Amino acid sequence: MYTLYYSPGTASMVVHLALLEIGALHELRLVDFDTDAQHDPAYLKLNPRGVVPTLVIDGRPLSESAALLMVLAERHPEAKLAPAPGTPEREAWQQWIVYLSNTLMSTYRFWFYPSELGAPEHTPEVHAALQRKVESVWDLLDAQLNANGPYLLGREFSGADLLLTMLMRWSRNMPRPVTEWPALKRLADLVRARPSWQKLYEIEGLSEW
Amino acid sequence: MYTLYYSPGTASMVVHLALLEIGALHELRLVDFDTDAQHDPAYLKLNPRGVVPTLVIDGRPLSESAALLMVLAERHPEAKLAPAPGTPEREAWQQWIVYLSNTLMSTYRFWFYPSELGAPEHTPEVHAALQRKVESVWDLLDAQLNANGPYLLGREFSGADLLLTMLMRWSRNMPRPVTEWPALKRLADLVRARPSWQKLYEIEGLSEW
Repeated sequence: MYTLYYSPGTASMVVHLALLEIGALHELRLVDFDTDAQHDPAYLKLNPRGVVPTLVIDGRPLSESAALLMVLAERHPEAKLAPAPGTPEREAWQQWIVYLSNTLMSTYRFWFYPSELGAPEHTPEVHAALQRKVESVWDLLDAQLNANGPYLLGREFSGADLLLTMLMRWSRNMPRPVTEWPALKRLADLVRARPSWQKLYEIEGLSEW
Repeated sequence: MYTLYYSPGTASMVVHLALLEIGALHELRLVDFDTDAQHDPAYLKLNPRGVVPTLVIDGRPLSESAALLMVLAERHPEAKLAPAPGTPEREAWQQWIVYLSNTLMSTYRFWFYPSELGAPEHTPEVHAALQRKVESVWDLLDAQLNANGPYLLGREFSGADLLLTMLMRWSRNMPRPVTEWPALKRLADLVRARPSWQKLYEIEGLSEW
């Protein structure tokens, strides 16, 4: 049995999407950022950093959305969120998930939370540098998808595309949203057409892309 | 057959350590940062971002050190770098590896390359904020190891400890090196006593911790 602690549109989205793709029974618990519920002592026991998501599996709390995607893919191989072990595609899948987590998730964290770089707002130099860093990832991924798309692994959809599309969505209010990169926009359109994406929008009450 | 493109003491270290722990046949290729070899066109074909490591497996180039650790652990289960699939320990292993990669590796990148934040040198505010971020990880991990050590997974060594010890080493010239956190120092001492660590020091020509 799974319990997912989530907040709409945040990093919990990829775990929620994975649960919907799998069709696994799960319970949702809203962590209300408006009341700073992520810093409640009870929640901090599950997640000492005070971030979402937390996925509780048989009483064990686990965090880190990219890791939770890997965990769920491995627990439910029939959902084909990950290629089978021992294949080259599996190794590419691991590479892309770590790359996305390591570059985009961490850079977005600084982008959205200037206080983590010691200031109430970014200087123009830092702002531009973080923007460049995110856009350099779009450049690299767009080239990859042009050469070998439409999905990150080529012709087959995988859970890595869920992670990427969540991260693409976070660029929607940036100076150059990811939809300006054609191969990335095509991938976003494919993932947004999936029943799991539409169902998540209903449940989490999201409207804007 | 494995070919590892590496540079001494960098993020390639954890992949080199994993190969030594496994005892897998491999060829080493030095990427000489002094001649900017990481930006040679031939290397960029293997690794478009121009970073190390790259591990070539049967002709396929793969990158991202934390992913390569996962890939090697999965290809060589007998080396026990990862717990067996389907166990709670496996899921904790995945969580720690993504956490380390996502927080420490990305923050070190900004710490060591101020240009990636748009400046030749960090302002005192940014410098202090990045230092705080690294130290908050040491606080969390030291508490974890005190409660459930000496290794990240408890009583048993795993490949996650190789990744953590490489990342701990990078703090040695910071204002508060990680060796000031007792449970982390104990883990570093355990990993530094392993034959793989000592062999890597010889091969890569490292001396200082």
